[in-house]
Amino acid sequence: MKRKGLVIPDVLVYHQGCLRIIDQRFLPLRVIYRKLSSVPAVVEAIRELQIRGAPWIGVAAAYGMAVVAERSGDQELIAGLTKAAEMLMVARPTAVNLGWAVSRIMEVVAHTKGVSPAVLRRRVLKEAKAIEADECRRSRAIARYGAKLVPENGTVLTICNTGMLAGPGLGTALGVIYQAYQEGKNPLVYVCETRPLLQGARLTAWELKRAGINFRLIVDSASASVIEHCDLVIVGADRIAANGDTANKIGTKMLALLAKTASKPFYVAAPSSTFDLKIRNGKEIPIEIRSGDEIARIGPCRLAPAGITVYNPAFDVTPARYIAGFITEKGVVRPPYRNRLARLLYSVVTKTRSITTGGRT
Amino acid sequence: MKRKGLVIPDVLVYHQGCLRIIDQRFLPLRVIYRKLSSVPAVVEAIRELQIRGAPWIGVAAAYGMAVVAERSGDQELIAGLTKAAEMLMVARPTAVNLGWAVSRIMEVVAHTKGVSPAVLRRRVLKEAKAIEADECRRSRAIARYGAKLVPENGTVLTICNTGMLAGPGLGTALGVIYQAYQEGKNPLVYVCETRPLLQGARLTAWELKRAGINFRLIVDSASASVIEHCDLVIVGADRIAANGDTANKIGTKMLALLAKTASKPFYVAAPSSTFDLKIRNGKEIPIEIRSGDEIARIGPCRLAPAGITVYNPAFDVTPARYIAGFITEKGVVRPPYRNRLARLLYSVVTKTRSITTGGRT
Repeated sequence: MKRKGLVIPDVLVYHQGCLRIIDQRFLPLRVIYRKLSSVPAVVEAIRELQIRGAPWIGVAAAYGMAVVAERSGDQELIAGLTKAAEMLMVARPTAVNLGWAVSRIMEVVAHTKGVSPAVLRRRVLKEAKAIEADECRRSRAIARYGAKLVPENGTVLTICNTGMLAGPGLGTALGVIYQAYQEGKNPLVYVCETRPLLQGARLTAWELKRAGINFRLIVDSASASVIEHCDLVIVGADRIAANGDTANKIGTKMLALLAKTASKPFYVAAPSSTFDLKIRNGKEIPIEIRSGDEIARIGPCRLAPAGITVYNPAFDVTPARYIAGFITEKGVVRPPYRNRLARLLYSVVTKTRSITTGGRT
Repeated sequence: MKRKGLVIPDVLVYHQGCLRIIDQRFLPLRVIYRKLSSVPAVVEAIRELQIRGAPWIGVAAAYGMAVVAERSGDQELIAGLTKAAEMLMVARPTAVNLGWAVSRIMEVVAHTKGVSPAVLRRRVLKEAKAIEADECRRSRAIARYGAKLVPENGTVLTICNTGMLAGPGLGTALGVIYQAYQEGKNPLVYVCETRPLLQGARLTAWELKRAGINFRLIVDSASASVIEHCDLVIVGADRIAANGDTANKIGTKMLALLAKTASKPFYVAAPSSTFDLKIRNGKEIPIEIRSGDEIARIGPCRLAPAGITVYNPAFDVTPARYIAGFITEKGVVRPPYRNRLARLLYSVVTKTRSITTGGRT
């Protein structure tokens, strides 16, 4: 059975020097739209997780550059873009898409010296739109490759939000689940609530409920109990090193270790924009340490005593040896990763289908 | 350096047919005392986690019996105690201490037939006090045996609340840490916040801050990141089967698997009242499934969308093969457990010191 298409929400829309986003901090209780018409506003939106998910972060930064292009005078255009690039690059340290998207725009700027400001503005916007369209295409391809790994009536364990609220199109890991659902495979999803900011309980639950997909919300630590009933684990990624070590939401490493112990395959779904082959291994990936208040409070409710020490790394690094495969827009990559990742990512999309070591693809 | 004694809070006090407890649902924000003067009130307090922790649950149930003895007329005394026993036994399914404590009281009742109601009342109360005093003594002994396992300046990972709010005296796993602290060993404790009801963030943080012990609060899933920096994991237990399989707060199994992968010793601290040798292995331990609202809401704040399916097992079972040792009041038991646990638990306290397979004791 093939199911009808899914309705994609307007997570981020660019229009005439202004970004309109759903402020994800208020989901699932309220759908609040916010307009961002300056780079500091875009940086704040990224820092405060109004917009989030590695692919959307990259796209938001690209459109942040378009906002500057649209709103800067002719004289200050290049300087404005350069300064904006610097500000956007450091908004969050772990997701590589941020720097990747900004660099793509700055390359356009560098190759457009001498043209009129009007042309430069047009080209910056065109590149930002291309980045979004590329991510959207990648998402669809990831979903198609990934869905082949999900068995009929399969049970999938996932963490954080990796769906439409995380990237253009269908997202990454959740996109795989959407595709399997659309192909009539009837997946059941165990959703980790994803402390501290509850992207699973708030956002993934909102998305899956909206899509009509069967799921059960669990506390993150219950994954050790449910993994026996799962066929596979699929997660997204914020940065993937050349050797396959993967930075993703705190808790991902736990899932990978549990999957290993339970002999369940653990997959990472990510577009090529999330791979950072300049980084050799996970030790070199910067991990964002966020405010302890994210743990000690939920909204207006204080949970822990005041004045205590909280350790709140937003991400962890899953060693490549626990990863059964990377689901990319160019196919599924199986270990050993070091050369295969590079070969796949630098290959032409249409020519490469999948590099595997056998097993289910 | 030896440190001064710790101040023990009045978690549960029995006085003339009435239990006064700290309602732990309001900690750490407010210390609210509640009076329980009937069995339904005691059952509700146990069910709603006003009072909690395996040893305190047993003691509360024992005093619940004393409340009935004190408040029942002479004619209805035996019938009242029998009915109270039935009600208390099923208040929570996983912790074995509940049934164990109630059975101890009912044995006194059974052996006291023919005596005057006044004498029976006195004996029931005496037995309840004995149960509390026994747990208190056991806690001190567990703490002394366990502290030997904590190295100087050692780092310990723990989950839930297993301290003074969980049992008379110093509690169980946290009691070990208190003892190490009092011996001047300067432990650093990583405290899992313990979703969904945040016994770590709310109660353990409250206790450790009050005691002046160095600790860091983390989300449960961050334990995969911090375990490398820990010397050992110590947790409590709600029921331990004859083969060593251990039911404890959801998330414990995750810690045990992570400890195994990181080659760190994982210990369970529990008094003999928590062992249930009638139960052969973990598969026979009933696991309490609690309301999904515990995950979907925190206090007045809704976190997840309404009308979704939540799976909320309150406990999980850690397989015995992941457990490096049981810290009991009679010594530390090392694997293989099946005969050693029985031998130790049925032995006389003063004669047995420790049964180990060598290694650190």
